[in-house]
Amino acid sequence: MTQIAIVFHSGYGHTRVVAERVKAGAEAVPGTQATLVPVEEVEAHWADLEAADAIVFGSPTYMGSVSGPFKTFMDASSKAWYERKWQDKLAAGFTISGSPSGDKLNTLQTLMIFAMQHGMVWVGLTDLPQNEAGTNRLGSFSGVMAQAGQVAPEVEPNEADRKGAERLGQRIATASARWAKVS
Amino acid sequence: MTQIAIVFHSGYGHTRVVAERVKAGAEAVPGTQATLVPVEEVEAHWADLEAADAIVFGSPTYMGSVSGPFKTFMDASSKAWYERKWQDKLAAGFTISGSPSGDKLNTLQTLMIFAMQHGMVWVGLTDLPQNEAGTNRLGSFSGVMAQAGQVAPEVEPNEADRKGAERLGQRIATASARWAKVS
Amino acid sequence: MTQIAIVFHSGYGHTRVVAERVKAGAEAVPGTQATLVPVEEVEAHWADLEAADAIVFGSPTYMGSVSGPFKTFMDASSKAWYERKWQDKLAAGFTISGSPSGDKLNTLQTLMIFAMQHGMVWVGLTDLPQNEAGTNRLGSFSGVMAQAGQVAPEVEPNEADRKGAERLGQRIATASARWAKVS
Amino acid sequence: MTQIAIVFHSGYGHTRVVAERVKAGAEAVPGTQATLVPVEEVEAHWADLEAADAIVFGSPTYMGSVSGPFKTFMDASSKAWYERKWQDKLAAGFTISGSPSGDKLNTLQTLMIFAMQHGMVWVGLTDLPQNEAGTNRLGSFSGVMAQAGQVAPEVEPNEADRKGAERLGQRIATASARWAKVS
Repeated sequence: MTQIAIVFHSGYGHTRVVAERVKAGAEAVPGTQATLVPVEEVEAHWADLEAADAIVFGSPTYMGSVSGPFKTFMDASSKAWYERKWQDKLAAGFTISGSPSGDKLNTLQTLMIFAMQHGMVWVGLTDLPQNEAGTNRLGSFSGVMAQAGQVAPEVEPNEADRKGAERLGQRIATASARWAKVS
Repeated sequence: MTQIAIVFHSGYGHTRVVAERVKAGAEAVPGTQATLVPVEEVEAHWADLEAADAIVFGSPTYMGSVSGPFKTFMDASSKAWYERKWQDKLAAGFTISGSPSGDKLNTLQTLMIFAMQHGMVWVGLTDLPQNEAGTNRLGSFSGVMAQAGQVAPEVEPNEADRKGAERLGQRIATASARWAKVS
Repeated sequence: MTQIAIVFHSGYGHTRVVAERVKAGAEAVPGTQATLVPVEEVEAHWADLEAADAIVFGSPTYMGSVSGPFKTFMDASSKAWYERKWQDKLAAGFTISGSPSGDKLNTLQTLMIFAMQHGMVWVGLTDLPQNEAGTNRLGSFSGVMAQAGQVAPEVEPNEADRKGAERLGQRIATASARWAKVS
Repeated sequence: MTQIAIVFHSGYGHTRVVAERVKAGAEAVPGTQATLVPVEEVEAHWADLEAADAIVFGSPTYMGSVSGPFKTFMDASSKAWYERKWQDKLAAGFTISGSPSGDKLNTLQTLMIFAMQHGMVWVGLTDLPQNEAGTNRLGSFSGVMAQAGQVAPEVEPNEADRKGAERLGQRIATASARWAKVS
């Protein structure tokens, strides 16, 4: 069974929607179990993160980077970092903000650098922009970029962005199965 | 008279459209003269760059960063770098690609770092995203992000993006006048 | 009188040393007053930030970016962002970590993007690497990079890095005087 | 047999030294063949890149990012990008400049974003900074950072940096074997 942990912070529910669709996409791959870990509850889940085959990181983009609560989680992972608990796990990421671009790339870059510090292996997306399936409308490759304004999470992110989140879940699950050590 | 040099590379004419509107925006500020310098002709214009009060850098985003011809110009500026010819000038930047996001931020970051190496001072935009004037629809602050697909430069970038380019021109011209040493 | 606010987070005192030398460098420029604002006390100082001519941002690099407490401050500035309270102020930045490189550039990039979101103007350093004065030994231009291992703040950062911090203070003070609106 | 292609640009021979040690480190892993591809000769090697299990990208850091010749190669890969020829291959990177930090991170970030655009999977380093083996003295995780001043390539990069290059070669070879599809 491939275990995927999805650690995320959601200020108003929009990032949670993305996280849930990443989970759905991952679990659509047979043999995959995905777990949502809100950063507020991470203290109870360090062992789950350590046990996972892959960890997906998700944060809204606030003022040009990951949110304060998500960064606080990143800092708290320094113990796992020092002990190399996450080394060789796969990693992926997603973010959301109010604009199409909105400096979201800096959030993904920050997540990539973070994963590299942990000795993880980074998996992005493979969909060409604005393809027939309608995913990747914003043109992002390093991870999912979604968009939501000041409306309810039921309304935005839109379905195209949600499908993109599913694609990331599917990709990280498939890659994790391939990467798994043959015993 | 404030002198603004706009150094740019345009593969298919779309970046040139943005450059021209930056120039128009700059020259709408009284006492400003702006000059377009295509990177292909930069060898004849190093003295103009050295004489300018501000230099605006513009490049399409190709494969996630500035274009090869623009990077070649950046490398060629190392003589000016070593002699500190551009130190204390103002700098700004713009980029364009086929997607709303499309890793354009990495191009702007690369231009900012480049300007910092030269000891320049970086000026971005001040428009909030999707404001009433319709500018900054993509949500960019570090410089102009514009979008153009595989259509003629007369069609894309759209008028909103062109207005954003004018706003950058206006901003760099106004800032240059303010920054100018009083004699 | 030029007012410079230095907002910083220091986990163990090393970043505070850098902040203090930025302040000393700024105040060595006649007509400059610099104020240290630890992020823990920022709630009492929003008006000071709003009144300053320039704001210098300083954070250790933790897990590849600004620290959690510093990011929390960045998020809290969104009210000032929306009301454009910091627009047209000058900005600069510094960071410190245990290694010579250590992904410190991502912290400076994150600070630059943050300042751009606020409509500020970014001022870096002008010293060539490893110059005769011994500053800029690490090769940083966008802001100060300093280094400190797990030793007391009295020992590290070393004197070269502290001088680099003074240089940044001097630079932001001089630039602020030049940028000040003539009345 | 795992095939690793190492595509690099070397202006004065220092980057070539790093490339050669990446190759040596890769070939020390049984069942691995590594090939050096200078960007000047890439036109004759597109098929080799397409056939490789992993591609390692190497460029000096010039003016804050990859060199002009390396960026020109990146742009030329857009045909392979559009046809998804490199999708699901592993990728890694290295860079070198005259300073310990010197904005090298922006080069590695640019290489990571580039690999993500191609749908590749990014593998970094796992060595903690300044470990007992003496590798990773600069504190880099996303790829190898090496340092060389204006001295002959025989002198710099130093042996610690060369060992770091070997470590990257070893890592990408081991990861490629693990990632290889079982038939």
